[in-house]
Amino acid sequence: MDYRQLSKEELQQIFDLQKKEYDNLVSQGYSVDIARGKPCNEQLDIAMPMLSAEGIENMPKSYRNYGMLDGIPELKKIFADMLGVDVKEVILGGSSSLNLMYDTIQRALQFGIMGSKPWNTAPIKFLCPVPGYDRHFAICEHFGIEMINVPMDEKGPNMDLVEQLVANDESIKGIWCVPKYSNPTGVTYADSVVERLATMTTKAADFRIFWDNAYVVHDLTDVSDHLANIMELCAKAGHADRVYQFASTSKVTLAGAGVSCIATSVNNVKDILSHLTMQTISYNKVWQYIHYLFLKDMDNVREIMKKQREIIKPKFDKLIKEFDDSFGDDSGIASWTNPNGGYFITLDVLDGCAKRVCQLCKTAGLTLTAAGAPFPYGRDVNDRTLRIAPTFTSDSDLDIATKILTCCVKYACVEKLLAE
Amino acid sequence: MDYRQLSKEELQQIFDLQKKEYDNLVSQGYSVDIARGKPCNEQLDIAMPMLSAEGIENMPKSYRNYGMLDGIPELKKIFADMLGVDVKEVILGGSSSLNLMYDTIQRALQFGIMGSKPWNTAPIKFLCPVPGYDRHFAICEHFGIEMINVPMDEKGPNMDLVEQLVANDESIKGIWCVPKYSNPTGVTYADSVVERLATMTTKAADFRIFWDNAYVVHDLTDVSDHLANIMELCAKAGHADRVYQFASTSKVTLAGAGVSCIATSVNNVKDILSHLTMQTISYNKVWQYIHYLFLKDMDNVREIMKKQREIIKPKFDKLIKEFDDSFGDDSGIASWTNPNGGYFITLDVLDGCAKRVCQLCKTAGLTLTAAGAPFPYGRDVNDRTLRIAPTFTSDSDLDIATKILTCCVKYACVEKLLAE
Repeated sequence: MDYRQLSKEELQQIFDLQKKEYDNLVSQGYSVDIARGKPCNEQLDIAMPMLSAEGIENMPKSYRNYGMLDGIPELKKIFADMLGVDVKEVILGGSSSLNLMYDTIQRALQFGIMGSKPWNTAPIKFLCPVPGYDRHFAICEHFGIEMINVPMDEKGPNMDLVEQLVANDESIKGIWCVPKYSNPTGVTYADSVVERLATMTTKAADFRIFWDNAYVVHDLTDVSDHLANIMELCAKAGHADRVYQFASTSKVTLAGAGVSCIATSVNNVKDILSHLTMQTISYNKVWQYIHYLFLKDMDNVREIMKKQREIIKPKFDKLIKEFDDSFGDDSGIASWTNPNGGYFITLDVLDGCAKRVCQLCKTAGLTLTAAGAPFPYGRDVNDRTLRIAPTFTSDSDLDIATKILTCCVKYACVEKLLAE
Repeated sequence: MDYRQLSKEELQQIFDLQKKEYDNLVSQGYSVDIARGKPCNEQLDIAMPMLSAEGIENMPKSYRNYGMLDGIPELKKIFADMLGVDVKEVILGGSSSLNLMYDTIQRALQFGIMGSKPWNTAPIKFLCPVPGYDRHFAICEHFGIEMINVPMDEKGPNMDLVEQLVANDESIKGIWCVPKYSNPTGVTYADSVVERLATMTTKAADFRIFWDNAYVVHDLTDVSDHLANIMELCAKAGHADRVYQFASTSKVTLAGAGVSCIATSVNNVKDILSHLTMQTISYNKVWQYIHYLFLKDMDNVREIMKKQREIIKPKFDKLIKEFDDSFGDDSGIASWTNPNGGYFITLDVLDGCAKRVCQLCKTAGLTLTAAGAPFPYGRDVNDRTLRIAPTFTSDSDLDIATKILTCCVKYACVEKLLAE
């Protein structure tokens, strides 16, 4: 049923029904939160054996002392294998990859990169594929970095636009990418997109791709999406230093208590360490070793991620089935992604209705990510896109959430159509 | 025996003896390092039970997930008690307090403090009590912050000079202080010094005291030195926001794998968190809880520090006895501190001899902190001060170290006197 084809009378009938259902939902006093991409307790339980630190007696004693700024080789190896890079290209950090990204930008602002002029010395811009990750955009906004939207499609960011922009504007210093199971659309960048990112000509010599590979092993199906190796492609194209890659175990082991890493060219590693050595003596190598004991190797990481998937896949399935049942293929008021991995479903509603849906949901006790959040400055010009994070919620709460959400989408969209 | 009173012939005799002893030491091929204030393995063993995480099953499940940017209340309480501040005045960090200091300065450079002009917008200066901690000075040098030396005496920094400087120069934005068992002199600031730091008038409204309380519980005697509560005194003087206090458990539990904290006024906490929330989602709360389980409370922290002291006090005693035996009270070529706590002995040698001592030691296989390191830009204008870090070294290596060190001091100083 295409809602846009209905008569005002038919719409009014539907609206009255939805309004009644909505009022009933409001009266229940529900309180459910599907705003953030947080693991649920059952997922976190998987990593609890890590905390007994079995085998810790084999840890080299020096790991308990200062030093080894770039992290322990055992865990660097696992990250290198995970990201398809060399151990020499890895620096391990603390528990937060976001912190590494923030620090990387702050360093470039203050000091420049490899001798380039500090980014602070002139206004700079970042390209932001949209919809994207709100915390990336928040960093740019905080630093006063102007953000330029680049639309995403099913292959990744629009590369015609990216190429044209970076070739002609020296003030464009970076692009944010979540290349695999993108936040929030779930898109994995096509080979052609990765290839073009690696080979394109940039006016700024110190242009960098911020490659946030947050979901590199976070599959929701048996077959992992293929993502081309951007660091290899960049090196081949003579742009070896173009990429800062980030990853963490926050959604492999414990959220906010994992280990983060930056993977980048040996030249970039050297440049980063020359500043990092002023900032800290070392990150937590004991925690790194405890992670190594638990993660063991990439085969075991894949086993862990299989357990993760068994817990969260049904939640994605439940939501998507509910969307299918509620809206079908041709409602004209809602479309959604069915991602192969990552933590989010993107739900697009009728233009001009996303904020209204959020507001209605909130009144009914369902917290969504704020409408607009996946866009720079929180501005979704179409007021269309909602980011749904199903992982954290219990099964019973997810039932409530889908009930409220589908009701509110119909309510808001029919309300809009009635007003046109 | 005062070497300065000896005739050239007497000096030459001594020199020949020392030279012979020195050549013999060199021929042994020793390799000993007393350069850095690192705990030894026996000290680190004390914290190993922490890694079994006994009681972890009682940890609130939410600690395993994102959130709680300022840290967990259980460990904040221990730090608050340790530093004599309120829990509301504490933010827990990652494993490195140096990182918190670096970030605090970087934030002020980029954003200013509480709405003040970013420090980046004009040249700024820091006061540096000397001798002091090389990593503090390295941060300033890295950021291009001009450093002004302020001499330390047995009560702390020369406050006449400090007061005069901060009252008249708006570009002076900070002072580095290690107020208890100061690095490297071991001095604990007198009440009068702390009082004057709290009450003095500063031309810069956004002047801050960087109060690195690294050795707050690191006593080497039964009675802890008294240090006045600067945050209380500042509040009383109407300068509640003047102090950023730092501490960590790096030398209570594990070096580079402890938990750090910043303690400061509630206004400063709010200001810091407004930026920190862009930088990271949370620090490692699981590690914080594991620390809480092990540290328990301040009574237990004091028990832990007693065990630490039992291991390292004999090392300090050994060095000091050796200095006594080798130089006595009146040699005129060496004087040294006998600290009540902390990690260092300061050894002052005849002016113009510190670098030569370092070089001689190095050739004989003993690594010292570079001469000059305890001074901004590595410049000890008197070429006099050596920082000795006895904790890390084994007893047998410490014997070798003292043998080499005392020999090289005599060698270099007599050589100097002969050349005069």
